[in-house]
Amino acid sequence: MIIVMEKNATPEQIAHMTERVQQLGLKAHVIHGTERTVIAAVGDERGAKKESLEVGPGVAEIVPILAPYKVASRELKPDPTQVQVLDFKAGAGVVGVIAGPCSVESEEQILSAAHAVKRAGATALRGGAFKPRTSPYSFQGLKEVGLKLLALARQETGLAVVTEVMSTEEVELVANYADVLQIGARNMQNYRLLEAVGNCGRPVLLKRGASATIEEWLLAAEYILNEGNPNVMLCERGIRTFEGHTRFTLPLATVPYLHRKTHLPVIIDPSHGTGHSYLVPDMAIAAVAAGADGLIIEVHPTPETAMSDGYQSLTFPQFEETMARCIRVAEAIDKSVCTMPVAAT
Amino acid sequence: MIIVMEKNATPEQIAHMTERVQQLGLKAHVIHGTERTVIAAVGDERGAKKESLEVGPGVAEIVPILAPYKVASRELKPDPTQVQVLDFKAGAGVVGVIAGPCSVESEEQILSAAHAVKRAGATALRGGAFKPRTSPYSFQGLKEVGLKLLALARQETGLAVVTEVMSTEEVELVANYADVLQIGARNMQNYRLLEAVGNCGRPVLLKRGASATIEEWLLAAEYILNEGNPNVMLCERGIRTFEGHTRFTLPLATVPYLHRKTHLPVIIDPSHGTGHSYLVPDMAIAAVAAGADGLIIEVHPTPETAMSDGYQSLTFPQFEETMARCIRVAEAIDKSVCTMPVAAT
Amino acid sequence: MIIVMEKNATPEQIAHMTERVQQLGLKAHVIHGTERTVIAAVGDERGAKKESLEVGPGVAEIVPILAPYKVASRELKPDPTQVQVLDFKAGAGVVGVIAGPCSVESEEQILSAAHAVKRAGATALRGGAFKPRTSPYSFQGLKEVGLKLLALARQETGLAVVTEVMSTEEVELVANYADVLQIGARNMQNYRLLEAVGNCGRPVLLKRGASATIEEWLLAAEYILNEGNPNVMLCERGIRTFEGHTRFTLPLATVPYLHRKTHLPVIIDPSHGTGHSYLVPDMAIAAVAAGADGLIIEVHPTPETAMSDGYQSLTFPQFEETMARCIRVAEAIDKSVCTMPVAAT
Amino acid sequence: MIIVMEKNATPEQIAHMTERVQQLGLKAHVIHGTERTVIAAVGDERGAKKESLEVGPGVAEIVPILAPYKVASRELKPDPTQVQVLDFKAGAGVVGVIAGPCSVESEEQILSAAHAVKRAGATALRGGAFKPRTSPYSFQGLKEVGLKLLALARQETGLAVVTEVMSTEEVELVANYADVLQIGARNMQNYRLLEAVGNCGRPVLLKRGASATIEEWLLAAEYILNEGNPNVMLCERGIRTFEGHTRFTLPLATVPYLHRKTHLPVIIDPSHGTGHSYLVPDMAIAAVAAGADGLIIEVHPTPETAMSDGYQSLTFPQFEETMARCIRVAEAIDKSVCTMPVAAT
Repeated sequence: MIIVMEKNATPEQIAHMTERVQQLGLKAHVIHGTERTVIAAVGDERGAKKESLEVGPGVAEIVPILAPYKVASRELKPDPTQVQVLDFKAGAGVVGVIAGPCSVESEEQILSAAHAVKRAGATALRGGAFKPRTSPYSFQGLKEVGLKLLALARQETGLAVVTEVMSTEEVELVANYADVLQIGARNMQNYRLLEAVGNCGRPVLLKRGASATIEEWLLAAEYILNEGNPNVMLCERGIRTFEGHTRFTLPLATVPYLHRKTHLPVIIDPSHGTGHSYLVPDMAIAAVAAGADGLIIEVHPTPETAMSDGYQSLTFPQFEETMARCIRVAEAIDKSVCTMPVAAT
Repeated sequence: MIIVMEKNATPEQIAHMTERVQQLGLKAHVIHGTERTVIAAVGDERGAKKESLEVGPGVAEIVPILAPYKVASRELKPDPTQVQVLDFKAGAGVVGVIAGPCSVESEEQILSAAHAVKRAGATALRGGAFKPRTSPYSFQGLKEVGLKLLALARQETGLAVVTEVMSTEEVELVANYADVLQIGARNMQNYRLLEAVGNCGRPVLLKRGASATIEEWLLAAEYILNEGNPNVMLCERGIRTFEGHTRFTLPLATVPYLHRKTHLPVIIDPSHGTGHSYLVPDMAIAAVAAGADGLIIEVHPTPETAMSDGYQSLTFPQFEETMARCIRVAEAIDKSVCTMPVAAT
Repeated sequence: MIIVMEKNATPEQIAHMTERVQQLGLKAHVIHGTERTVIAAVGDERGAKKESLEVGPGVAEIVPILAPYKVASRELKPDPTQVQVLDFKAGAGVVGVIAGPCSVESEEQILSAAHAVKRAGATALRGGAFKPRTSPYSFQGLKEVGLKLLALARQETGLAVVTEVMSTEEVELVANYADVLQIGARNMQNYRLLEAVGNCGRPVLLKRGASATIEEWLLAAEYILNEGNPNVMLCERGIRTFEGHTRFTLPLATVPYLHRKTHLPVIIDPSHGTGHSYLVPDMAIAAVAAGADGLIIEVHPTPETAMSDGYQSLTFPQFEETMARCIRVAEAIDKSVCTMPVAAT
Repeated sequence: MIIVMEKNATPEQIAHMTERVQQLGLKAHVIHGTERTVIAAVGDERGAKKESLEVGPGVAEIVPILAPYKVASRELKPDPTQVQVLDFKAGAGVVGVIAGPCSVESEEQILSAAHAVKRAGATALRGGAFKPRTSPYSFQGLKEVGLKLLALARQETGLAVVTEVMSTEEVELVANYADVLQIGARNMQNYRLLEAVGNCGRPVLLKRGASATIEEWLLAAEYILNEGNPNVMLCERGIRTFEGHTRFTLPLATVPYLHRKTHLPVIIDPSHGTGHSYLVPDMAIAAVAAGADGLIIEVHPTPETAMSDGYQSLTFPQFEETMARCIRVAEAIDKSVCTMPVAAT
């Protein structure tokens, strides 16, 4: 870390801060500039209570140098991680597609959706059984009944099941039915839940919080990885900005940025990332072109009557066409969309 | 709600949407404008799956009219709610001040802080025992040991204890020791936790999520109120914006806006809301002037060596001076800062 | 527009507002709901001083219905506009690429860049002669000397010249040398300048302000269109958000959204939109996949010594590779990147 | 500045960057850490094209140390600047209040407003003659006729006149009539205009751009100061964030932050900063409590029929009450609101 002293810092203040750095187990290099003095503190600063140094006498600013995450870092593991479960794969050149309704509503709905998304080329099925809803007056999901329907859909189609878990008490139950546990954006910094899914034995899809920095997101992943679970997929689902014409702002530069910083696969959610179904296809295709390792897309038999998120769900034909275009774009940049083995189709 | 049709919407599309409105149990008024047709849907739209109407044929936009929260609404309860516990009061013209360290670190630290903040005029003590930390490598709190130290400080000073609860499993434990349970910004939409504190029998301090809209925040309060707990205090602690010179941006207009929309008391956190101790005093005073019903301020015996948040903690003398100025400003706008009874001091 | 009355609005207040609507030349439809009364005002509300109605007695909120822009609207002109100048085309299925250095620095620099970007497939050359710089201490551009060098580069290569104009006094001068006048993000709401370029007889590239809504941006375009200049290209260059790992956040959903709302071509600037050269290629390709009608990319012979924006400029080989990938992705979605006629190459 | 090298940077890359630093006229200190090497570059980095170093081989990041502004800096001039014109003063413990309508609409309107705001305690009159309007279809101001009416109001009341100038061509004209020239938020980075008002011989009120960082804002002030005009007032008028319940988000922490960084007075605009008249009084009072050196408030005889900004304008009685409360709060924090000499009242 770099400690920038104020212009009029006294020699005593500089000496005091130098000593403080040494007390933290770091080496201090004092550099006298033409206008200011800075103290470079050398060593592993991650454990140090460095932020509190800001209130030290004569200190203008503290500038951290090391990224605070370790295990998620590409510097530690240069090779990209590929997450694989059943026929779904994401990462290392392969694009995996997860699709299905926002909420599981009925057997007919989830089965028809499962067959449709499989036919179009998806290898995993999404569907919410426990639904985090902004309003307590909204539909809260079918809970275990929904999980059973998802398992039935997997049995019929072979698709991997991706579904959200909202609290520590439900982790075991959800892990019994699901192939991938999703942590929603609202729970990205629910640390007890992160620790729990770190121990669940299933891959995790970790959505970015709507106002989380990339660093906070990777540190949330670090909570999971630290428990011994290496199969974390990072899912960008849009951030909160001043823009009102989309529900969230979907920053696709997240994809190449994360590929430089971490080995974990990056999934894009163009449904939540735009909030309007007519924007989803173009953004799904753009995500593939940006290098995304996967997509998660809301698809519903009849969006107009969906119990949640109908405004951002594709119909079956819309999804089919989107998939066809994604596959062509993936080929154009020498990547491939992962598909079910021929026998299974 | 208002359904705005596209300019070239056909009579069939308009008829279809009119029918859909009626299926939701609402009355439809069709208004043919010079450029567009709009359909006004009359009735309680809160339960309706109205958002999905957006994908209806010929629909340009859905404009909701009713606020989605009910119990938190000032329309339902015009009189302001005052939350009171021990000698702490907030709301209805009285300003309550909560102060203390970010984390409970030791008996000596918490007791000295408790005495100091009481002396300066606070009626409640803050202090974290379970700490949500962005990084898994940071200090995570003393847990139950910390709770016991807080209870000891209450016994010595009579201050009400305010402390954070991070997960449903810990609600009962924390409620055994604390007078007010705090829900942190990261957990504002952790719905299971909101339901749990709705049943804990203690007042709740609900922090605003860093990117939550006011509507989402009031709906989070609604989760708690709906469980039968009427004692919810809303705590503004800053939002995430493009500004980098403060850790968060503290929008004090939240205070008069909430006073118009809800009867719940509004507490301001100038410590997290700025992230720099040198900005805290002026923003604390400004919050009182803006009409805040309370303050929560980080105070530490020696901020430079604090285990967390030292950069935004006041020293004892700084807090004392800040309180003195807050009291004078409160008087200037015909309000009062609540204090301990004379005998207790 | 819809006037939403407060829950406890009196009949007199409703009557008063109804009258006010009629005074604005609009028809009023009063709808009594179960909780509130709303007044729908029918007619062209664009000229009306409608916002001031908000302070009317008993008014809760004013909800506008019509988009405030007209000439830029797709409803008015359903066919997409294609802007064409020399061999550069953008819009209606054709992707035009503008490339070159941030600033014109010397004859050698601009000519080598012009030849390189032409060779890789660009049909227009960018280069700043008048530079808007955040700091008065930064390089401010070669001014007319720079314009002459751009004209020389056009003479040698046939590329159309795109360059920024910063003030009304310079419009005529810049229009003498340039083929397309660029309005920078900082000047998007410099209305005198918009009017001036509306009369300059050249196509205009209108960059989005870093915090402009789409509506404000289209209204800025409307200022230009209203002066009789139909050749406006909208350039998304990133918005200001809380994200710090990119200089701006580049929201590609702008592309399909604008295609729905306006007939004007949409150009993407991945250089400013990311601020880091290593993110530019993937975002350029993603922009094409999202349906962009054009790209504007910073390319410099030696970015490390560029006088401005070196950190976001591609080298010649990087640009060449990026173009090759863009061309393949355009084909994959049945579009084409416009190129120079063979004889010219 | 600090050059942070990548973990795997080679000795050749480190040597190359060291040389580059020296070529920029700076001294290089190479510090080998446990994980990375950093190069501290010592000297005045403001003129250096330092950002382009980011693309140097092996470079991870460039961290600037010195603030890029000089003349605006408090380090250069520790004493606060007080701007004074006629009986208006702002800065150095005195709070100056500017009030009046958004636009000058008629002689009767501006004169009645001038008398009313003077009576309540303002010492300067605001009123727009040249209006920057988002839509070309909105009222654009009375132009020179408006300026003459403002001069008439000054003659009658003795209030200093504050009005906006929108383009370089109008600077001389506006300076002939006005006492203070206002640069609007949309023109904060219109550098030609900044230079022009730097030479106009009048104090300048420089509004913050809606998405400008503090650093960009101070650099815009630097453009004016550099032309030899020392009388610049910084006006915070709210920033663009995700919040939708206020038109902009008004961050009052700007006040103490700027007081630490610059000697220039800080004015707060609670009218634009909230966008709703019912929020203006509390935020005006809070601004004074936060230490603001002045206020600029929209006041109109009949807001409901104002030609612009009626929704955020106070009536005369509302303004009078707000002023009375501001005066009491100023006293409570040992400051004073500047007033007209008794004889003049």
